[in-house]
Amino acid sequence: MVSGIERPLDLLNKARGKEILVQLKNDKQLVGTLLAFDIHINVVMDNAKEIENNAHKRNIGLTFLRGDTIIFISPSTVSAEEKQ
Amino acid sequence: MVSGIERPLDLLNKARGKEILVQLKNDKQLVGTLLAFDIHINVVMDNAKEIENNAHKRNIGLTFLRGDTIIFISPSTVSAEEKQ
Amino acid sequence: MVSGIERPLDLLNKARGKEILVQLKNDKQLVGTLLAFDIHINVVMDNAKEIENNAHKRNIGLTFLRGDTIIFISPSTVSAEEKQ
Amino acid sequence: MVSGIERPLDLLNKARGKEILVQLKNDKQLVGTLLAFDIHINVVMDNAKEIENNAHKRNIGLTFLRGDTIIFISPSTVSAEEKQ
Amino acid sequence: MVSGIERPLDLLNKARGKEILVQLKNDKQLVGTLLAFDIHINVVMDNAKEIENNAHKRNIGLTFLRGDTIIFISPSTVSAEEKQ
Amino acid sequence: MVSGIERPLDLLNKARGKEILVQLKNDKQLVGTLLAFDIHINVVMDNAKEIENNAHKRNIGLTFLRGDTIIFISPSTVSAEEKQ
Amino acid sequence: MVSGIERPLDLLNKARGKEILVQLKNDKQLVGTLLAFDIHINVVMDNAKEIENNAHKRNIGLTFLRGDTIIFISPSTVSAEEKQ
Repeated sequence: MVSGIERPLDLLNKARGKEILVQLKNDKQLVGTLLAFDIHINVVMDNAKEIENNAHKRNIGLTFLRGDTIIFISPSTVSAEEKQ
Repeated sequence: MVSGIERPLDLLNKARGKEILVQLKNDKQLVGTLLAFDIHINVVMDNAKEIENNAHKRNIGLTFLRGDTIIFISPSTVSAEEKQ
Repeated sequence: MVSGIERPLDLLNKARGKEILVQLKNDKQLVGTLLAFDIHINVVMDNAKEIENNAHKRNIGLTFLRGDTIIFISPSTVSAEEKQ
Repeated sequence: MVSGIERPLDLLNKARGKEILVQLKNDKQLVGTLLAFDIHINVVMDNAKEIENNAHKRNIGLTFLRGDTIIFISPSTVSAEEKQ
Repeated sequence: MVSGIERPLDLLNKARGKEILVQLKNDKQLVGTLLAFDIHINVVMDNAKEIENNAHKRNIGLTFLRGDTIIFISPSTVSAEEKQ
Repeated sequence: MVSGIERPLDLLNKARGKEILVQLKNDKQLVGTLLAFDIHINVVMDNAKEIENNAHKRNIGLTFLRGDTIIFISPSTVSAEEKQ
Repeated sequence: MVSGIERPLDLLNKARGKEILVQLKNDKQLVGTLLAFDIHINVVMDNAKEIENNAHKRNIGLTFLRGDTIIFISPSTVSAEEKQ
């Protein structure tokens, strides 16, 4: 069971500094390290890579991503760490 | 008859910790355990699985999902539990 | 003539506990019993069934539906009851 | 010339209880009697009929229609009545 | 040069009672007389005619048009009058 | 280097009375003289011309353009003037 | 590791005066120098060039870009500078 997630943004807070997968509305994905986010779910990622159809497409590095383009954010490593 | 649902968010409150089916606007579905939600209907799900055309597509684990991508959330087990 | 509907939400208020047809923007429809709604037209329906091209598609039971996915809500039985 | 329309909602106010044609963003139309509206242009229509490609498609009776699905509302009979 | 237009709505104010061309997001156009508008750019037009592919399609008469369906409003006759 | 642009609207302020190119979300462009704008990026242009696929399509003259239809506004002559 | 980015807009603040790549929702990209931005992520770029399918398409120079058309902004040179 995951503890300490009362509100949705708590998950993003736990994921700071960790790898996240971001699914975009345009069917592409970004993977990278979450550095910052705000209440609009705008995020900054470091070492971001764009992925399409499961293939690496391009490196975009340090990136500001608008929240309204996002479907979901999955910080997989938080999931593993926090569960027992 | 279902009792104790005066406002729509009451249903989501009852569904915390239970399995939900989330129908997305992009024709995909997520199933998983509802951990948290807010007034924008942003949700956090645990053990989330993405489903497309009734087939399991990928495991995305612990996930933050933006509310504006959602059509409906169906916490089936609440339905069964609460009805007599 | 229908009486007692001064504001649009008055109709939804009269329809609580009754069958409604919800036309969605994605060309599907939900039918079920209206349990609750809010000013965003988020609704909770019980015994909801999804319909596409006039055919029953799946049962989704007790469901939270986001208001921004809705075109119209038609509580047919209110229409019949209230008119003389 | 039409008198007494200083603000757009004045026209909807004059059209209460009268027949209106509602053009929807999905290329369909609703015709029926306007019972109520609010500042979001949510409307309640009675005896609403859905029309597509100039053909009657289905009766939906007493209906709540979300304002954000509407292109225009044309209360034709107000036009005729008010002009001299 | 056009005088007296400090803010965009000043143009709509000058165009009251005059012919306007409204380009809609759905590729259709409405022409008619501007009677009223508000800050959402909702407008009321009289004697409105719908035009598609440069051909007259239907008369819709006195009409309430939602602002969020509009691309531009061109009150051509104001342009001619105000310029020297 | 361009001076005096601290906030995005400063550029639009400098472009008043000058030629602008407006790229619309519908893949068309408008060129004309910027007369006025507001915080929604609603703009009024004079002598506006619609361009599609690099070809002049129609003159629309003095025009009110809704901000939510715009991708970018490029006041080319400001660029040339202000740079050294 | 990137330092000094607590909130997403901090990245845009660091990127002022530097080259950015802007990915637009319409599948095109703009590259140029970031001059200014606001909380809506409206930006002003200098020497902006439009790119489509990895090919240079046109120079648009000094440009105001609406924030709601943006997917991400990648100030690549900030990434390189700030990391050790």
